[in-house]
Amino acid sequence: MRQLTHQLSVKTHGRRLYDITPEVLGWAQKSGMTTGMLTLYIQHTSASLLINENYDSDVLVDMEAFFARLVPDGDPLFIHTVEGPDDMPAHVRSALTQTSLSIPFVDGKPALGQWQGIFLYEHRTSPYSRRVLLHLMGE
Amino acid sequence: MRQLTHQLSVKTHGRRLYDITPEVLGWAQKSGMTTGMLTLYIQHTSASLLINENYDSDVLVDMEAFFARLVPDGDPLFIHTVEGPDDMPAHVRSALTQTSLSIPFVDGKPALGQWQGIFLYEHRTSPYSRRVLLHLMGE
Amino acid sequence: MRQLTHQLSVKTHGRRLYDITPEVLGWAQKSGMTTGMLTLYIQHTSASLLINENYDSDVLVDMEAFFARLVPDGDPLFIHTVEGPDDMPAHVRSALTQTSLSIPFVDGKPALGQWQGIFLYEHRTSPYSRRVLLHLMGE
Repeated sequence: MRQLTHQLSVKTHGRRLYDITPEVLGWAQKSGMTTGMLTLYIQHTSASLLINENYDSDVLVDMEAFFARLVPDGDPLFIHTVEGPDDMPAHVRSALTQTSLSIPFVDGKPALGQWQGIFLYEHRTSPYSRRVLLHLMGE
Repeated sequence: MRQLTHQLSVKTHGRRLYDITPEVLGWAQKSGMTTGMLTLYIQHTSASLLINENYDSDVLVDMEAFFARLVPDGDPLFIHTVEGPDDMPAHVRSALTQTSLSIPFVDGKPALGQWQGIFLYEHRTSPYSRRVLLHLMGE
Repeated sequence: MRQLTHQLSVKTHGRRLYDITPEVLGWAQKSGMTTGMLTLYIQHTSASLLINENYDSDVLVDMEAFFARLVPDGDPLFIHTVEGPDDMPAHVRSALTQTSLSIPFVDGKPALGQWQGIFLYEHRTSPYSRRVLLHLMGE
């Protein structure tokens, strides 16, 4: 049993879902491992991780439309407004989605379902550079 | 340290929470392991996983009532409607719950709390066959 | 490769986010491990886990305000009311946040981002004693 770690840097330019599946698969498949556990961890509280459908891009549009309505920017409910009207909503959206994802590694690759992609969900409207840690343990 | 994997097939017949605790415990306890980490992973984006109360079945009814109200079928907000009025809501419900669960394995079994059960949450209204991967690493 | 487990007991006194980062770091750093995977698991369905901003305490106030509005106590939608008006909302809030968290362990400590803290989110209004299992696997 052995383990590998890697830091992925993802440049975002506005609020939406970013498909990071190619970067994750590329790194994981170079590991030479056959079976194990792949964990993704995002080191932020205003961007998150999500397994989502990767086929019809309308799904990504609708997902964002839903969260924008559920957690509106500039909601007068919020008192933490110093970092802008999209900051506290970004923390709430992150709480409602994922900071970590665990994906079994089988037959030399992450065992994603046929229509599953791995997404970084940027919740802020300004550009950011986001760090996602990848950890693979197995053999 | 060693690892085992298993694929669970769950036949669903409509939108609700399905208790898969017996199947998970049955497989895990045959492993012969004492201590480790059990990971569950669902290979879909319109069904999800959830740890929930397993005692009063009213909790399952109320949970579904809440999600049905929060993410209504046929919401005019959604443009991805080709797969039916319950499809995009199913993706949103999956995003709001879990694709993976990590449960410590202690004293030869998953360390569930007294009232915790492991549920597959089917979000589509038609019957499906769902795949859940189980991965156990430990000794 | 080796593993360690620990049970953290957290006394709560009302509905809010409790920062458990110091307890988790304290235990993890005594492990003597350099690289691995840290998993937290809460053995309850009316309290949950959350990675959240740890800098401005207003974020914690706003997070609670959001969930209180989204899942109101005493909602007539709910039929599971025998344990009080805050019980079924507590199960829903737990479903919307996390029962388990996976955090890579790098350079001898959990690889939290600069502004990330680990929180137990108590969703009941009465005092409770909550159990969080910590599991560290690595070397």
